Amino acid sequence: MDRWWRDLVFSSKEEYEGFCRRYAQLPEGVRASTVRFGFAPVERPDRQLLMDLSLVVLDEPTVRWAARFTSSAFPGVPVRIGRAMQGRPIQGFVINNRIANVGTAHGEEYALRVRERVGEAVGIDPGLLVPSSTGIIGWELPVERMCEEVEGLVRGVGSADGLALARAIMTTDAYPKLCGVQVGEGMVWGMAKGAGMIEPHLATMLVFLFTDVEVDQDVLDGVLGEVVDRTFNCISVDGDQSTSDSVFLVSTARKGRVEEGVFREALERVCGFLAEQVVRNGEGTGHVVRVEVRGWDDETARGVGKAVVNSPLFKTAIAGCDPNVGRVLAAAGAWLGRRGVRLQPEGLRVWMADHLVFEKGRFLLDREKEVLLSSYLRATAVEPSGKVFPPHQRLVDVRLEYDEGDGRAVVLGSDLTVEYVHINADYRS
Amino acid sequence: MDRWWRDLVFSSKEEYEGFCRRYAQLPEGVRASTVRFGFAPVERPDRQLLMDLSLVVLDEPTVRWAARFTSSAFPGVPVRIGRAMQGRPIQGFVINNRIANVGTAHGEEYALRVRERVGEAVGIDPGLLVPSSTGIIGWELPVERMCEEVEGLVRGVGSADGLALARAIMTTDAYPKLCGVQVGEGMVWGMAKGAGMIEPHLATMLVFLFTDVEVDQDVLDGVLGEVVDRTFNCISVDGDQSTSDSVFLVSTARKGRVEEGVFREALERVCGFLAEQVVRNGEGTGHVVRVEVRGWDDETARGVGKAVVNSPLFKTAIAGCDPNVGRVLAAAGAWLGRRGVRLQPEGLRVWMADHLVFEKGRFLLDREKEVLLSSYLRATAVEPSGKVFPPHQRLVDVRLEYDEGDGRAVVLGSDLTVEYVHINADYRS
Repeated sequence: MDRWWRDLVFSSKEEYEGFCRRYAQLPEGVRASTVRFGFAPVERPDRQLLMDLSLVVLDEPTVRWAARFTSSAFPGVPVRIGRAMQGRPIQGFVINNRIANVGTAHGEEYALRVRERVGEAVGIDPGLLVPSSTGIIGWELPVERMCEEVEGLVRGVGSADGLALARAIMTTDAYPKLCGVQVGEGMVWGMAKGAGMIEPHLATMLVFLFTDVEVDQDVLDGVLGEVVDRTFNCISVDGDQSTSDSVFLVSTARKGRVEEGVFREALERVCGFLAEQVVRNGEGTGHVVRVEVRGWDDETARGVGKAVVNSPLFKTAIAGCDPNVGRVLAAAGAWLGRRGVRLQPEGLRVWMADHLVFEKGRFLLDREKEVLLSSYLRATAVEPSGKVFPPHQRLVDVRLEYDEGDGRAVVLGSDLTVEYVHINADYRS
Repeated sequence: MDRWWRDLVFSSKEEYEGFCRRYAQLPEGVRASTVRFGFAPVERPDRQLLMDLSLVVLDEPTVRWAARFTSSAFPGVPVRIGRAMQGRPIQGFVINNRIANVGTAHGEEYALRVRERVGEAVGIDPGLLVPSSTGIIGWELPVERMCEEVEGLVRGVGSADGLALARAIMTTDAYPKLCGVQVGEGMVWGMAKGAGMIEPHLATMLVFLFTDVEVDQDVLDGVLGEVVDRTFNCISVDGDQSTSDSVFLVSTARKGRVEEGVFREALERVCGFLAEQVVRNGEGTGHVVRVEVRGWDDETARGVGKAVVNSPLFKTAIAGCDPNVGRVLAAAGAWLGRRGVRLQPEGLRVWMADHLVFEKGRFLLDREKEVLLSSYLRATAVEPSGKVFPPHQRLVDVRLEYDEGDGRAVVLGSDLTVEYVHINADYRS
């Protein structure tokens, strides 16, 4: 995939915000509003938390939308509701952060009550509104406080731009993630929140994609499936999958049609960027690692790539700028072996950056190569603590090429740093 | 399984060594020797490393042995040789630590040369000796230095007891791991090294089990398979599987026979203990976690258990003494969902210690329960840094019970601490 963002460099938070502002305009036919308020959770009445509640309204109802949800067998209430709405028209989204609405006594009742209240206030059938939540698992939505805020929320429709919206869906994300690309007379615009299941209880990836070009529902669905499979389904921060992952794509059909291929490419440019930013923005992420695998079949290639980026030992080595390529082979070999897939080491070549490190069944390691690779790893790192913008878009390139099969996969992952453990070991009581 | 070791408490390294000394005697018909020497690896001639080379000799050749090896598709040379020897008689083991003999140019040649030299010196057909190595992946065995040490090694046969041997197979293990149990007129004795693939390059689990009671080869093999499946195949330190995992079981048949059930129970008592010690001894391990799953089928139950103990978010929460039970459900749900296994949350109950934390589709969390569970997690912890003996044998108990199916699994894992990352991010150059 074309990494059109690869040379972006930011030297300050302000510079990064300037970049985001370029993408602040929402596609035609999409308006938004967002409010922030404090509340005391019933489970912890001694605490005061902040919630952002957002509303996205389409000018008219549409069946031109598609979605993909977490495959978790323990999904949140919004995922269950959203799934049931598939194939029916929608006219907007009610989104909150802070509480994921998963595994609670009143989850469904509260989600529907908030939606009802918003629908009434904005004059839309509540059944046309898709609820979407991320945040703490196991805690109840602050339903009373949310309902109190609805009037202000609805009054503000049209006041929030794409950047405000991308900020309002963040939980522990260090910075907003959004972009847009021109396509025909219109655009494809997207925003994402999430960085694995990083903060205690806070889960996880939400992606909203809007386009004003006219695309039919079946095309939206097919193209979204393909593109999600190559982008969001090929990333991993910590291998932990959330109860709340959702990706939505909506066409307002306010501009002319474009060819399916052109639309697919635009969507992939947006999703590719957002997927990589989710990894880069992961709390504790010091390196983004790109593992490209060629050989076997596509599914096996992806499995190998994911095994490498999810190996704690490989991840910790990268965090330490240690080009410990033995761990690449150990992770790949373990994954293949467990599935009974054969590996003739003689048919495998492994590169890090542009250095061949394994060939003909043996490692090609010497002191000089190790020094070069270590400095490469230092150059691709960012300091994970205190991160409030991405200073660069570099990544660690690992390639595995196997003589048999023409499978191909590209997987993105992050390293495993002390900061990751600190953040996630945080003691709550 | 009967955790006969559960109440062991040690207040010093000396006390723990006293415990180990109780198991220092090897079964009849087994003699051992061990030497330690320094060498400069060819890949890093500026460095001086220490290697332990050990020899275990059986009084006579036997076909009464069985083994299990890593399922990695990228196994080390000793694993490949050991596998090829299955079904044929053996008369001993040549074991080294420090270099795993994986993925090098001369791996097989060097392993065979060392074996040849030992066989000649001890007067045994070299083809009867099983090589076994753990340590750095990708580096060559120091074959010349090893051959130089063979004479001293062979001269010492009979001088090393089981404790010396258990020490000599350690790599980054913090303390030796061994035990024995009486069975009939004889005993089952075992030792283990390994703690995941913990130190940079150093991999990983080796287990040697000897018995002097007479057990036929087919029984050894069947019982070993069953017991390994319930013990060593149910542990995880970091989910990373090594290129070198090997478990050997040998009967010298010097004592009378015992019933198969009696033998199996004795073997399980030894393997259960050693498997737990491998987890407890893991570098960076602060908590040992035991996840018991009842429901679905056995395989699914084990998958759920492993998904929980391998979830980085659950592991980091435990490291922080945070009873974040939402992550148990998220990990189980993700694993089940990816495999298309259904989960009716209403049919699931989850406990931590003896506290019910999830029932009827909702979490049962309140401030009091969280405080109790936090103090439980603090009581089951050990300080991972500077660990040189196990102060206690406590573990964190998590139970999942599902209404459908009668599957059952017990899985042991460790937490994920800052120490783990520090150890494995160690910068080599």
